[in-house]
Amino acid sequence: MNEIDETKAARHRDKMARRKAVQDAEVAQKTVEKGLLIVNTGPGKGKSTAAFGLALRMLGHGRRVGVVQFIKGAWHTGEKDALETFGDRVVWRTMGEGFTWETQDLARDVAAAERAWKEALALMADETIGLVILDELNIALRYDYLPIDDVAQALLARRPDLHCVVTGRNAKPQLLEAADLVTEMTLVKHHFAAGVKAQQGIEF
Amino acid sequence: MNEIDETKAARHRDKMARRKAVQDAEVAQKTVEKGLLIVNTGPGKGKSTAAFGLALRMLGHGRRVGVVQFIKGAWHTGEKDALETFGDRVVWRTMGEGFTWETQDLARDVAAAERAWKEALALMADETIGLVILDELNIALRYDYLPIDDVAQALLARRPDLHCVVTGRNAKPQLLEAADLVTEMTLVKHHFAAGVKAQQGIEF
Repeated sequence: MNEIDETKAARHRDKMARRKAVQDAEVAQKTVEKGLLIVNTGPGKGKSTAAFGLALRMLGHGRRVGVVQFIKGAWHTGEKDALETFGDRVVWRTMGEGFTWETQDLARDVAAAERAWKEALALMADETIGLVILDELNIALRYDYLPIDDVAQALLARRPDLHCVVTGRNAKPQLLEAADLVTEMTLVKHHFAAGVKAQQGIEF
Repeated sequence: MNEIDETKAARHRDKMARRKAVQDAEVAQKTVEKGLLIVNTGPGKGKSTAAFGLALRMLGHGRRVGVVQFIKGAWHTGEKDALETFGDRVVWRTMGEGFTWETQDLARDVAAAERAWKEALALMADETIGLVILDELNIALRYDYLPIDDVAQALLARRPDLHCVVTGRNAKPQLLEAADLVTEMTLVKHHFAAGVKAQQGIEF
């Protein structure tokens, strides 16, 4: 780093002081505490990964976490193994039977989604749990394996202190409407396009 | 779920069989294994959270992880506490002194960023570590606390088996060019706009 002259430092200080004032005023306006319905959607990476990062954060604060995998039964082995370190503070339910193009059996997919949703409702009712991750629920909804009306209604009727995260691309508009926080993961550049294969620790 | 008639099930099966064929062919083309430079940027939530989710995945596979926090020293307490469960398999370096609008001192910010970058280089050189998270490095680059040329060059020259994740909004074009995987987190809907405040387990 080169020498920083006094004028530049002073300008920086003023700019940051103004920014801090705006920031503080914004924070002061926010007073509501509530369990959030969070949706991570879009074609990019990081939808489920961010949900598991949130689980880590919750666990760090001593809370319990529930996970229901709606579709990709065979994935997330790394996260699952890591979360086992936290013992019974993480409840993990894998109901999906792999990607839907792996099973090629509609009736089986629907039955698996219905079982998963039942597990989800049970975890959402468990008052010792602070966060429930409904992993790839959007896929199950997109293929109409589950009725969106019932799902949206149950999520809106969740306990006031329960946070829920729904992941998967193509989130239904009705779910976005019910959500408090929606992030779209956008694909800017992907290593698969350069011939790099799925690797342990990155994709699974 | 209503009755599913046989025609619908057969159509579904055909569609999914075609999709699986495409999927399998795509997977077969990807043969390269390499440590990735991953950039999570954009104004939405989940940039750092997804990086910590990736840490969890790596840890689940028995790997070691390094974290350098460039800016928000006071945040990520939840993740930090949770990752302490993994003992010395996680190396955590907090060099930032809070948001830059908190310190209002350019010289101090630059010095902190330089110390953090030095720690980052040390972790990247440690062959026992499989993933290094450079949290909010984009912020340090944006304010020119660190020279982008040097940073991009060092990241491109990383060990072939090392994955690096850089987070923070406004990633510099030069970094995007060097990256293998870039995801932009887009803000679709945010609970702060509805007056909900930053909550334990969600924002920190």
